[in-house]
Amino acid sequence: MILSKILDSIMDLQGEFEFLEFNVGRKKNDYSSAKIRICGESLEHLNKIIREVLRLGAVLPVTREVEFVAALGDMVLPDDFYCTTHHPTWVYLGGEWVEVEDLMMDKQIIVEPENHRAYCVPISGVKKGDLIVIGERGVRVKHPERPRMGVGVFEFMSSDVSPERPATALIREIAHNLKDRARNGGKIVVVAGPAVVHTGAAPYLARMIELGYVDSLLSGNALAVHDIEYALFGTSLGVDLESVRVVSPRNHIAAINRVMRAGSIRKLVDSGELSKGIFYQLVKRDVPFVLAGSIRDDGPIPEVVKCCDEAQRLYREQVKDADFVVMLASMLHGIAVGNMLSSGVKIICVDINPAVVTKLSDRGTSQAVGVVTDVGTFLPLLVNELEY
Amino acid sequence: MILSKILDSIMDLQGEFEFLEFNVGRKKNDYSSAKIRICGESLEHLNKIIREVLRLGAVLPVTREVEFVAALGDMVLPDDFYCTTHHPTWVYLGGEWVEVEDLMMDKQIIVEPENHRAYCVPISGVKKGDLIVIGERGVRVKHPERPRMGVGVFEFMSSDVSPERPATALIREIAHNLKDRARNGGKIVVVAGPAVVHTGAAPYLARMIELGYVDSLLSGNALAVHDIEYALFGTSLGVDLESVRVVSPRNHIAAINRVMRAGSIRKLVDSGELSKGIFYQLVKRDVPFVLAGSIRDDGPIPEVVKCCDEAQRLYREQVKDADFVVMLASMLHGIAVGNMLSSGVKIICVDINPAVVTKLSDRGTSQAVGVVTDVGTFLPLLVNELEY
Amino acid sequence: MILSKILDSIMDLQGEFEFLEFNVGRKKNDYSSAKIRICGESLEHLNKIIREVLRLGAVLPVTREVEFVAALGDMVLPDDFYCTTHHPTWVYLGGEWVEVEDLMMDKQIIVEPENHRAYCVPISGVKKGDLIVIGERGVRVKHPERPRMGVGVFEFMSSDVSPERPATALIREIAHNLKDRARNGGKIVVVAGPAVVHTGAAPYLARMIELGYVDSLLSGNALAVHDIEYALFGTSLGVDLESVRVVSPRNHIAAINRVMRAGSIRKLVDSGELSKGIFYQLVKRDVPFVLAGSIRDDGPIPEVVKCCDEAQRLYREQVKDADFVVMLASMLHGIAVGNMLSSGVKIICVDINPAVVTKLSDRGTSQAVGVVTDVGTFLPLLVNELEY
Amino acid sequence: MILSKILDSIMDLQGEFEFLEFNVGRKKNDYSSAKIRICGESLEHLNKIIREVLRLGAVLPVTREVEFVAALGDMVLPDDFYCTTHHPTWVYLGGEWVEVEDLMMDKQIIVEPENHRAYCVPISGVKKGDLIVIGERGVRVKHPERPRMGVGVFEFMSSDVSPERPATALIREIAHNLKDRARNGGKIVVVAGPAVVHTGAAPYLARMIELGYVDSLLSGNALAVHDIEYALFGTSLGVDLESVRVVSPRNHIAAINRVMRAGSIRKLVDSGELSKGIFYQLVKRDVPFVLAGSIRDDGPIPEVVKCCDEAQRLYREQVKDADFVVMLASMLHGIAVGNMLSSGVKIICVDINPAVVTKLSDRGTSQAVGVVTDVGTFLPLLVNELEY
Repeated sequence: MILSKILDSIMDLQGEFEFLEFNVGRKKNDYSSAKIRICGESLEHLNKIIREVLRLGAVLPVTREVEFVAALGDMVLPDDFYCTTHHPTWVYLGGEWVEVEDLMMDKQIIVEPENHRAYCVPISGVKKGDLIVIGERGVRVKHPERPRMGVGVFEFMSSDVSPERPATALIREIAHNLKDRARNGGKIVVVAGPAVVHTGAAPYLARMIELGYVDSLLSGNALAVHDIEYALFGTSLGVDLESVRVVSPRNHIAAINRVMRAGSIRKLVDSGELSKGIFYQLVKRDVPFVLAGSIRDDGPIPEVVKCCDEAQRLYREQVKDADFVVMLASMLHGIAVGNMLSSGVKIICVDINPAVVTKLSDRGTSQAVGVVTDVGTFLPLLVNELEY
Repeated sequence: MILSKILDSIMDLQGEFEFLEFNVGRKKNDYSSAKIRICGESLEHLNKIIREVLRLGAVLPVTREVEFVAALGDMVLPDDFYCTTHHPTWVYLGGEWVEVEDLMMDKQIIVEPENHRAYCVPISGVKKGDLIVIGERGVRVKHPERPRMGVGVFEFMSSDVSPERPATALIREIAHNLKDRARNGGKIVVVAGPAVVHTGAAPYLARMIELGYVDSLLSGNALAVHDIEYALFGTSLGVDLESVRVVSPRNHIAAINRVMRAGSIRKLVDSGELSKGIFYQLVKRDVPFVLAGSIRDDGPIPEVVKCCDEAQRLYREQVKDADFVVMLASMLHGIAVGNMLSSGVKIICVDINPAVVTKLSDRGTSQAVGVVTDVGTFLPLLVNELEY
Repeated sequence: MILSKILDSIMDLQGEFEFLEFNVGRKKNDYSSAKIRICGESLEHLNKIIREVLRLGAVLPVTREVEFVAALGDMVLPDDFYCTTHHPTWVYLGGEWVEVEDLMMDKQIIVEPENHRAYCVPISGVKKGDLIVIGERGVRVKHPERPRMGVGVFEFMSSDVSPERPATALIREIAHNLKDRARNGGKIVVVAGPAVVHTGAAPYLARMIELGYVDSLLSGNALAVHDIEYALFGTSLGVDLESVRVVSPRNHIAAINRVMRAGSIRKLVDSGELSKGIFYQLVKRDVPFVLAGSIRDDGPIPEVVKCCDEAQRLYREQVKDADFVVMLASMLHGIAVGNMLSSGVKIICVDINPAVVTKLSDRGTSQAVGVVTDVGTFLPLLVNELEY
Repeated sequence: MILSKILDSIMDLQGEFEFLEFNVGRKKNDYSSAKIRICGESLEHLNKIIREVLRLGAVLPVTREVEFVAALGDMVLPDDFYCTTHHPTWVYLGGEWVEVEDLMMDKQIIVEPENHRAYCVPISGVKKGDLIVIGERGVRVKHPERPRMGVGVFEFMSSDVSPERPATALIREIAHNLKDRARNGGKIVVVAGPAVVHTGAAPYLARMIELGYVDSLLSGNALAVHDIEYALFGTSLGVDLESVRVVSPRNHIAAINRVMRAGSIRKLVDSGELSKGIFYQLVKRDVPFVLAGSIRDDGPIPEVVKCCDEAQRLYREQVKDADFVVMLASMLHGIAVGNMLSSGVKIICVDINPAVVTKLSDRGTSQAVGVVTDVGTFLPLLVNELEY
């Protein structure tokens, strides 16, 4: 619906609007129309809004002639040049609507009033003296209407998960949200996968816990085993995380064995053997955690809940009153948690694989923010923001 | 806007509707309401539509008591069980709206009329005798309203590019579209990258040309060089495509040299040296092609247009009157072409990298169908459909 | 070690070799040398082998002058042109070794005998009359020796998982392997994820079972639920797989409920309610299957083993005597199985996500063949090969 | 070749070795054997090396009985437990070699001396009193020999490009390398794509230039246009990089127009209009840059070299004497540059798409370090390390 897009756009740009008229086509083949008054804070603000809504298919109540000026040089445009969409476009030229030829997106319109012609050119095609359309008056854009039926295959794609996002700004805003939440007593649940350790980010997640930004941790056997392996031996799956070299492939079994001998993670901390890392901080600060078993587990260590029904129940208990869920490189547990959340809970999902974020939103969890990045670079930058 | 979703949903399900009333909130903080009559083809059809629109937040004009029946066994639901969304939900129970506790998506609602309670459980939590809500009467769902401002980071994700699509059905429909287009005299432009050859799909693209499904081919130096290498030597970048083994890394330079010595691809065909493959078919059937130069090129061979301005101009000429553009594993040329198309042209974009499809739609080319798959398995299946 | 590469290369090209001398440097800073006799089936075969081993750093016992001929035209090379590597290179010119300047990969060498110079040019830089090196006599390449220590970060990358493989040839060879295995009474275990159903490939996996190519199936709750949903209602997670449209989001819960009411999958088949699909074929043909529970499960249905220890034990029993494991789009279960296999078992791993294949090989399962493609296009092509 | 792996492993662990004997099988079906003396710095160091080489298939000259101790509790191992590979394994038990049953990777071996049996169990299967093999004496592992011919499909995968790398350690080492290089007067060439700007990393690349870590920049039209758009308007392709919202889709054309009117980037800097960002720093510090044209370009701006031959030549001039090339999110230009480099040049390749790194190494550029991460989080962390 074009109208929704127009209203959304006005609100995005923080303008005000008021309906003056609204005629709805009564049946599904009828046309609808609306007359809307738009207000901005200044003339400039208003013009910005108008520019956008005209691009979206609105028309001004009074039709005015299209405006144009001559290009001052080859490949040089006037400042206020009109920038095309790729939708069918007309200009009001010499008292009639003239369709723009050769339409392409993000290009310019040249008019030839004497010939009643208008056509689209890229900036590289502009010659000195060409009459370039400026502003938005007298330009009409026709957005494709939603086809009513039989659209089939040509409909289901409209994506917005992209790795090309401004990472530092996003992280700053996420940190800001977490700080707010923590300050207001909201509950932050972190769901994390073992890649947190492999990518060298374990100390940063440990620091988040120390700073009080984790009220509950949901994960599986692997995160605990690798975190403890790293705390005890400096390796993750046998890879030394400083020199990035395989030094001892048996270390993860050795870590499991140390927990087994102590009896539990908690006892390993109490005995003084485990003195840093994610699980050390959790135990020390009495932050609850649930480790769900999976068929992939080595061990598993005693804290792991081996029955999936029971693990689900315990997870559900933790997320019941969550305000904010941060998912760190954990597809399995992330999707499990996503299915348990009501739509009021905010989700941050960090994964290097865009498909993981897509999967979350495909299942209906639309309140998620996806950040397609390496958790090993994300967490240091996030913790840096949280510290200050 | 919830209303758009509701109307969309009715149309998706091929129902009819009629507006009886429509009160638009005049300003952006006001509420709006509408009264709509919905018609289906049968009672069952109507119920299906009603089920959907109630899930989307509509309410029935007359409030009726919620319906429920006792579960016949542990973990056994009545056929007509109500399936929850993850949005806040109420049931009309004993003459009042009771909010459903512990809400999660795709679960069931149990009511306790004597306690005026309703709560959400997974199927694994259902016990024999529990009173399970059925149908949609007496259930109200509150969808989150679009927040009016200051949403910031929590807004921009809503994805639909997923590798998990039913591939064979999609391919069947694409083939159907191509056949229609070819039958009606529409112009089909194919944009292809060298992966078409590396993945072993060159014979299938050659066959598409032979069958008349390619009216123009846009690509670069690499596709031509690898296609000719494969036609002459059976290798692609020196890899034998039957045994999947590197046999002769110099073959792509040798292929370039053969074209150089002949003077052009056309002359290589005329001399009888080149007798199969994509470019053989193009030359033989007089299908126009444009090869755009890039900084990555070895050679390049004579047909390549080395100046990017000129290449753009020639591409534009080919796509000007295109009805259908098929992009096969070519990010560089795909995006170039995407920017040249007006919104009436249909695009099929096949790539194993979801980011390529995302990139296309990020640039505003919303008429694209993305298929995230290997072009080496896509083309054989597509050609198979086109043959019959 | 360069020697291993040379011997490998001779064997790859199916040549014979014999050691005449072998002097090993006794300590790690010493040089080693070997004198090897190479035999080919024909002069051409021998030359092909020699060409390769010279590229890898071998030298011929007698030093001969480099050979060259004049280019016949601009950008035209002699057929037997020498094609460069990117490693330091010398030519034996006028009785001395002259280093080639400006070295780049896949380019040509021009010599100026009068100036004792040799330099590298791309084909685009070749002018008529330039003296182009041909053959491999008199050319010496120095491969970088493995640095002895302190290499740190510059060492760990050498990849071979690429989506750009010739798909149809690979699939043909996989089918050939499976047929062999089936004919010889070997055991084929299939590990499959729910994407098999979402991508529309369920009928093809069902057909593989019918044809006798599956001796055991390992999976989880989701595959069974979606397969049964598709068999009963034609949808997968509510998406109609023909029209690619969401028709009924509650269907997967409805499918679970049907199994619950029947009591088990087997009973659903016995009752005649379930009459096609993967699990119908498994039950009908008495093929054993194990469904491992996970925290993500809806339901789960009765056949699912909820305790992860027990599920591991049952999986292990199935794969104990496996000869061939086919992993279809299942990271969780694929890695679980990968960890259980001894190195004699062959693995085919099909996933659209290269990271899944990488993960398998990172964990030491080096006998795997990775196919980076969509299971929805892979299975139809595989079944097609298996049928004939 | 197993011997190479063993020697590599000794060098990796910084041990010394000396060949005592070496008998090479003369022909390709013969066996070879070697006797090697290994020295370590301490008994512990030596044991560590021996443990590794035994895992790789070496055997000790004197056969000793396997050692074992009883498990102290259920699921508790002795500290020095032997950790299995997934290759066929024997233990020397009661004077004979006994094959270990049920072999799996990363598990333990239990022996029953009275029954001459040995079998493999996961830690979860260990019971108190089980006799667990410790140390490496008396254990023999048989690695699969490279099959001599006919291996076909089961050969080509062995991957090492993984997103799961310890990011911060890698970045620290890269910074260390860059500092070294800069201090010693080496030439650092940066190849960058427009994602540097979209992901918000432009200020960090600008800072790298300011700090003197960029001696030459190679890119295309888009990086310059988006950098200048961001410097002038705060947006990238119209997206405000602070609020992450589309504010003005025409800004990139407006940026092009500003350069066009000034006449060139340099003139835009000289006029004072452009006063920050990547290209401002390049111009101000007289760092050479080459912008190669492509068919995708809007504009292009005057500095862009439109002919791909000429652009190649200019790129080649810049990289001729490079010591270090840093590729930032630029597949097109990265591969172009990769093809121009000799094997002595170090490459850092940062991209969120593993396929880009794979592609580089597939083309033979084996000296590359791939970092699979978001350039928007990589650059801030790198600059942070470079500052101190």
